[in-house]
This record gives sequence, structure tokens and C-alpha cells, in this order.
Amino acid sequence: MAVNDNVKLGKNVKIFHPHLVNLYGCLIGDETKIGSFVEIQKNVIVGTRCKVSSHSFICEGVILEDEVFVGHGVMFTNDLYPRATNADSSLKTEDDWSVIQTLVKRRASIGSNATILAGVTIGINAIIGAGAVVTHDVPDYTTVVGVPARVIGHVPNTDELINSGLLSSVS
Amino acid sequence: MAVNDNVKLGKNVKIFHPHLVNLYGCLIGDETKIGSFVEIQKNVIVGTRCKVSSHSFICEGVILEDEVFVGHGVMFTNDLYPRATNADSSLKTEDDWSVIQTLVKRRASIGSNATILAGVTIGINAIIGAGAVVTHDVPDYTTVVGVPARVIGHVPNTDELINSGLLSSVS
Amino acid sequence: MAVNDNVKLGKNVKIFHPHLVNLYGCLIGDETKIGSFVEIQKNVIVGTRCKVSSHSFICEGVILEDEVFVGHGVMFTNDLYPRATNADSSLKTEDDWSVIQTLVKRRASIGSNATILAGVTIGINAIIGAGAVVTHDVPDYTTVVGVPARVIGHVPNTDELINSGLLSSVS
Repeated sequence: MAVNDNVKLGKNVKIFHPHLVNLYGCLIGDETKIGSFVEIQKNVIVGTRCKVSSHSFICEGVILEDEVFVGHGVMFTNDLYPRATNADSSLKTEDDWSVIQTLVKRRASIGSNATILAGVTIGINAIIGAGAVVTHDVPDYTTVVGVPARVIGHVPNTDELINSGLLSSVS
Repeated sequence: MAVNDNVKLGKNVKIFHPHLVNLYGCLIGDETKIGSFVEIQKNVIVGTRCKVSSHSFICEGVILEDEVFVGHGVMFTNDLYPRATNADSSLKTEDDWSVIQTLVKRRASIGSNATILAGVTIGINAIIGAGAVVTHDVPDYTTVVGVPARVIGHVPNTDELINSGLLSSVS
Repeated sequence: MAVNDNVKLGKNVKIFHPHLVNLYGCLIGDETKIGSFVEIQKNVIVGTRCKVSSHSFICEGVILEDEVFVGHGVMFTNDLYPRATNADSSLKTEDDWSVIQTLVKRRASIGSNATILAGVTIGINAIIGAGAVVTHDVPDYTTVVGVPARVIGHVPNTDELINSGLLSSVS
């Protein structure tokens, strides 16, 4: 079982295979679901009702707001110039670099195998295409795809959908 | 051990580390080999003599015909607009989306870290380059690479190889 | 525990979760760190003071020299035309293909979700961008990004840094 005792789990968090994940020092919000082969590092905050799919890695420095979808095989990063060692060939320790913060806002969705460069902010309701490499901030209600990820469209918000007649009501 | 009792295993299926995979509700054909850190979901059909390499994810909705090669870190998908929650912020359940079907035909090979968008058909003997993001159908005997994946060549079939003199016999 | 008895471990190698990796027949140098959900195959050589991050796959044919950084979800390959079966539909065995060698030189860093095609050499101190697909050799002190990976810059070496005044001393 690799859900460390120092993980703060909200109510009704679902971890389908606790012995096939590696979670430590993080906070997981209520009703969030976590798939197999997922690693979530210390100081990560995952909001409520998120879904973190199998094979994904969420590193220190990342905050997922509520209702975020993380696809399969998604890799976050917190360092733009990672190295194994310092100039004197000693192993890098935590004192040898600063964690860069990454924020994923409410209801955003990140497609499978996407890579998220350290320091970006992904906006509310944004969609990151599968396999995209996100190198810049993604505005709210925007879809990005490709390597590097570029904006290809707008994700209509609820008001727009109602005004356009595409959505008749919001239950 | 995360090979669920509801998995239908053919004869001589090789799962190298049964405690390092997550298989449930799927059918695995005779003589197929499955690597470590692989997840295969319910209703997936994997044909005979396939190879599913480590770190790959095969979701509900996918059919692999016989003799398909799936490289390492390959991610299939079954939803084009995944979200963690519904418009009313309730968690999505199975009733809230329809699985899109994906078909990989006989003897196709999918390179490592490739991403397969929901709904495509990958043709007989096709080759998907490593790291490709497949967004459209791939014709039989075709090689595709890149993001998004584009056709770069033709994979000669056996008759063509014999006619061209490149292959002298078919044992 | 999936660290096979045939693994040769140097001094002070750190494997954070020995039951969440798959290591066999490889040699791991002193002080190297290995994350969770990592597979390292037989005949691989990993140098001293390397860091192999979670979710990465290092196949037979790969040599990592000292102080190499391998990010998360990095996939190496050792075959350019992988197939599950031979022309006669029998399962491929080790006798049916030759492993292609890949070399990563001293102090190189490979970003997360990168894919390394069989046969390339990655030069000293080179940086491979996150999500890149490396299809050609990468010269020493070079940064590459994208699919396929292209050179975008030069990583200054220590002499250059001192001459430019950016680095005042080498401890």
C-alpha cells in the first residue's frame, strides 16, 4: 500500500487500487477519483470531484482546482532545466532548485499523454488536447492542441450555449 | 494481484507481473503477452498473439485484432470531450457519456508513447510512429508519424514484396 | 518486490518503492535514484548519480552514462519496426530481431514524456525538451524540442559560462 499516512484524504475519495499508486504529503479533495499507477507528490492540492486517470504524475508545485479532469499518462513538471547533479557532480537535493508553481483552474480537462510545462496556468473549463505539450498559459474556455500547444477553439460557456439555443436549460 | 477474476484469459497468455497490472472485465486472446504497469478495462477485446507493452492503457471501447503490437506508454481514449463532472457539478458516471469505439486491425503496430484518439480505425499492418497522436483513420499498410499523425509511407504487403523481389518466399 | 536478484546495484542506490518497479538483468550505478512505476530491462547500464523518474521505461540496448537525468514517462525503444509476430504469424522471440543500441552521454537531461527512437546518441549535457520525439542524434551541449525534435539552442558549457561572466567560479 503506497498511500502514505501523511496524505490528507477528503470524504469519499476513491482510490481504486491503493497498492498500485504512490501518494505522499498531498491533499485530495472530497469525492475525487484516482486511477492506478498514479503518483502524486507532497504539497500537491487536488480539489473536490476531480478525476485523475491512470498513469499520470502530479508533482510538487501543482494545484488542481475543483472538478478538473486529468487524462491517462499526463505528466506535470516543476523544473524547466532539470539535472541529476550540480556543477560539482554532487547529487541535486531539494535545496538545489526551486519548485515552479502550476495551476489548473476549475473544470479544466487535460487529455491523455499531455505534458504540462512548469509554471503555466490552465484556465477555467479549458481543454488540453491529447498528446499536447503545454508551454504557455491557456486562457479560460479555450481548447489547445499540438506540440507546442496552440489555441484552436473556444469552449462555449453555459450562458453562450443557452443564448445560442444549443443548451435549452441548466439543470 | 490485480488481474480480476472476471478477465477471460486465452491459452498461454503471459502476464509477466500479475501484481503490477490492472486488468478487469476484458478478454485476452491466446498467446498474448502483457507487460508491467498495463491497465486494460472492461469490454476490451485483445486478439491472439498480440503484444501489449509496459505502461500502456487500453480503455473500454477498444478492440485489438490478432497479432497487434502495442508499444510502451501507449494511451487509447474513448471520449473526445472528457470532463470530471456534469454541468450541475455532479460527478460523471457511466450514464453520462457514451463510449466511442476504436478498432486496431490485424498485425498493426503502435509505437511507444503514441496517443490514439477515440473513434479511429487503424488499418491492417499499419505502423504508428512512436510519439504520434492519431486523430484520423489510418489506412491498411500505411505508416503515420507526428502530431497530428500524417501518412509518410506505405508498408508493402507480402505480394508486393514478392513481386519486387525483396521477399523470395513466404514460409 | 520486482527488483530481480540478477540486478547489479551499486552503493547507495535509492529505489523508493521496490515493489512498484520492474528491474531485471541491469546494472545500476552508485547513488542513482529510481522512481516508482519504472521498468529497466536486462543488459541496460545506468551510470552513477543518475536520476530515473517515475513512469519511465529503459529497454535493452540503452546505456546511460553518469549523471543523466531521465524525466517522468520517458520511453526508450530498441526496434524501429516492431511487430508482435513474424510473417508466418508465429510470436516474435528474441531470435527474431536485433536490439539497436542507444547511448545517452554524461550529464544529459531528458524531459518528461519524451520518446527516444532506437539508435540515437544524445550528447554530453544535452537537454531534450518535455514531450519531444528524438529521431536523430543530439550533439553535445544542445537543446532539442518538438516532434520530431529539432535543435533550438546551445547549452553553454562551464568554460563559456565563466568567459561570459555568467558563472564566476566552479566549485
